Amino acid sequence: MADKQSTKPARGTRDFLPDDIRRREHVIGVVREVYQRYGFEPLETPAFENIETLMGKYGEEGNQLIFKILKRGEHERSGEADLALRYDLTVPLARVVAEHQTQLPTLFKRYQIQPVWRADRPARGRFREFYQCDIDATGSTSPIVEAEILGAVSEILTTLGFADFVIRLNHRGLLAAVLAAFGMPGDALVALDKLDKIGVDGVIADLVARGVPQDRADPFVHFFGSEISGVDAAGGILSASENNEFWLQRLAAVGAAGSDALRNIEQVLALTQVTEARGLVRVDPSLARGLSYYTGAIMEIAVDGIGSLGGGGRYDNLVGMFLGRDVPACGFSLGLERIIVVMSERGMFPESVVKNAVDIVVTFLGEGSRVEALKLAGELRQARWRVDVFPDAGRKFDKPLKYAAARGARVMAIFGENEAERGEASIRNLETREQVSVPRADAASYVASLLNPQ
Amino acid sequence: MADKQSTKPARGTRDFLPDDIRRREHVIGVVREVYQRYGFEPLETPAFENIETLMGKYGEEGNQLIFKILKRGEHERSGEADLALRYDLTVPLARVVAEHQTQLPTLFKRYQIQPVWRADRPARGRFREFYQCDIDATGSTSPIVEAEILGAVSEILTTLGFADFVIRLNHRGLLAAVLAAFGMPGDALVALDKLDKIGVDGVIADLVARGVPQDRADPFVHFFGSEISGVDAAGGILSASENNEFWLQRLAAVGAAGSDALRNIEQVLALTQVTEARGLVRVDPSLARGLSYYTGAIMEIAVDGIGSLGGGGRYDNLVGMFLGRDVPACGFSLGLERIIVVMSERGMFPESVVKNAVDIVVTFLGEGSRVEALKLAGELRQARWRVDVFPDAGRKFDKPLKYAAARGARVMAIFGENEAERGEASIRNLETREQVSVPRADAASYVASLLNPQ
Repeated sequence: MADKQSTKPARGTRDFLPDDIRRREHVIGVVREVYQRYGFEPLETPAFENIETLMGKYGEEGNQLIFKILKRGEHERSGEADLALRYDLTVPLARVVAEHQTQLPTLFKRYQIQPVWRADRPARGRFREFYQCDIDATGSTSPIVEAEILGAVSEILTTLGFADFVIRLNHRGLLAAVLAAFGMPGDALVALDKLDKIGVDGVIADLVARGVPQDRADPFVHFFGSEISGVDAAGGILSASENNEFWLQRLAAVGAAGSDALRNIEQVLALTQVTEARGLVRVDPSLARGLSYYTGAIMEIAVDGIGSLGGGGRYDNLVGMFLGRDVPACGFSLGLERIIVVMSERGMFPESVVKNAVDIVVTFLGEGSRVEALKLAGELRQARWRVDVFPDAGRKFDKPLKYAAARGARVMAIFGENEAERGEASIRNLETREQVSVPRADAASYVASLLNPQ
Repeated sequence: MADKQSTKPARGTRDFLPDDIRRREHVIGVVREVYQRYGFEPLETPAFENIETLMGKYGEEGNQLIFKILKRGEHERSGEADLALRYDLTVPLARVVAEHQTQLPTLFKRYQIQPVWRADRPARGRFREFYQCDIDATGSTSPIVEAEILGAVSEILTTLGFADFVIRLNHRGLLAAVLAAFGMPGDALVALDKLDKIGVDGVIADLVARGVPQDRADPFVHFFGSEISGVDAAGGILSASENNEFWLQRLAAVGAAGSDALRNIEQVLALTQVTEARGLVRVDPSLARGLSYYTGAIMEIAVDGIGSLGGGGRYDNLVGMFLGRDVPACGFSLGLERIIVVMSERGMFPESVVKNAVDIVVTFLGEGSRVEALKLAGELRQARWRVDVFPDAGRKFDKPLKYAAARGARVMAIFGENEAERGEASIRNLETREQVSVPRADAASYVASLLNPQ
């Protein structure tokens, strides 16, 4: 035997044990079912892309977080990389729309649920491998797309049991108008994006450090600051419609009046009123979203005290980088990891999701009973039950009993020596601990009657 | 706009468009459902591992096919790799069993359906990214494990519609006995493994090139050669039981008599007779299986004229390389890609799997009808139908009609100008091309009656 090796997964990655996977599959099942009802179709792309497909799409910070794959064979020694792991699901989608344009409908609505990889410093809730659940529609500029996406995402979260989320809505055009009105440089957005975390004073300090005079930074940040959480002057929470009216007026007043951006946001607001997102959308002019490719509406779902569960927006130019002509597009990415963390902490998973991996454990004593054990397992599986055969029972049944408990089984079927002699099987109800012997031929139907009374 | 970029996926990888994914999910759904009924639980591991976890586990040829990930940040320039993409699902499982031993049951039965990556030269049906569907049980040496695994895999293939597969069964101990009986070196297995492809004369030539004298190579290869396909002297096909009796006797005669290996194979054969693998298992002493970690029974599923759909075996020492003490294990890996290729070529996918991505397309004319279109879509989705809103209808309905046909929709709901005036919706049966106007309030129930008659 070789020396013992490290058994840890790589830094920032996780092994998902059965209970983890059942949680994940519960969430993914809801996501997939809702997206399909909204007319989105599944797409999957390779884990790695040619390196030039990814480089330069995410800004300088993004570039540095991309995992690069070494050339192979004789080129390995060059130390060069020609492939890179997927950093998100949006750039691969843009490439796919360009590559397969003749096969895809002009309006292409796809969902994609796959892992992405970022060489970020791992922290609580931040991993180097994590799943994204994306929906995107390419080929339409209609605000119906934004409304449908927000409706679908809202229905997913509601179905999963979230009752306290809001949808923050802004528009890159409105951000530009506000920056212009206050004479801010473009990188003021980077500072503004941190308003949630570092507060009004923090952002002002950051802006000053970037060379913005204090007397310009002050009014700019206070434009967003006082109403950031929809709190009005009296300290009460504004309703979504009060909040939206307030901000639409205020944005119009600083120069956005009559703009396409303002009109677009008004339309998205009106249309979401007939979707599952009704009453949840709050205009929030401080929402900046990091990625550089957005061109229109931007949105984010936030839960009080938790932060973002996902975000997205319109990006009408990204496909053009691959296709040579622009194709309008809008999408939203749900953060699976954050959703699972919050649902676990809040006990939002149904009991049946987490436990109960099998229904029945069959066990036996002595090689002579092995065939009977396998036969009964086969009969029960044909009846669609989930059945485990415990292959190594000793003289006592404490090992298989312990095993059955760990698997969440409700029934154990036993072929011991007495049972073999009498042509019977013992059936134990693991919940009531009652055990009865039944003729071998009746074993399967008796087990079924225990699992499914009446 | 930047210069147009390449839109190809990386060499040897594929984009899976919606029709592809529906095929893949159909197969994966069957695999998962059957494995669960056999008591296997889901597991997932990270795409990449620390490089030393993978290196040296697959032999020299395997090492060279591993994709390596460059160190990050300041270390990138060193050209060194510290991570590597998963090459199979078995080594990660061995690592997981060692790492999480206190959390896992002593008998751990898991399935894992994830992609693996190998820097092989791409060819027809051979990719650099492909899925494996693995089941493995760790913690038991009982031949019940082999029998249950073969039963589960057989049930999967039968459920998918395969009727012409056989299970080739051999044992590393029997291979060793035959090698010893004919005075062969260990690497004779590498030559023997090609018997299917290069025939008796090819293998003899290969052995001679490896320094085996011709007069030893001849009887060794002919030991396997004449009966390789279960063809008896008269040219007829031997039944599975005739074939097995023939080979068990012949193996006993060359020195395997009374060995643990022969006894183990006899037990696996007897136990599979009460599983879904009954009548399908054929002892085949020429089966070698490439991977070096197998220690006991080895098996492969083959379809005539197609080749292998998957294989596996017992490997009782691999977990020990991580844990420091041996844990017995046995597993099987189904080749998803090959299964899908064969099912596509043979037309084995149900029509419903491939087409029919949505049930209803809702379309409208003019901004005034947008809200009604979205509302009806919401009503239909609440009734669990899959609904698409076509957001950009022009004056005519040819574009949405073409779109609805491409999506496989059966019904189109239309809000035109006339409908808006009259408070109605037009509902078109896309199969019969009949179109009727119904009061707006009855639209959803009328659509449902078309999709689900009576």
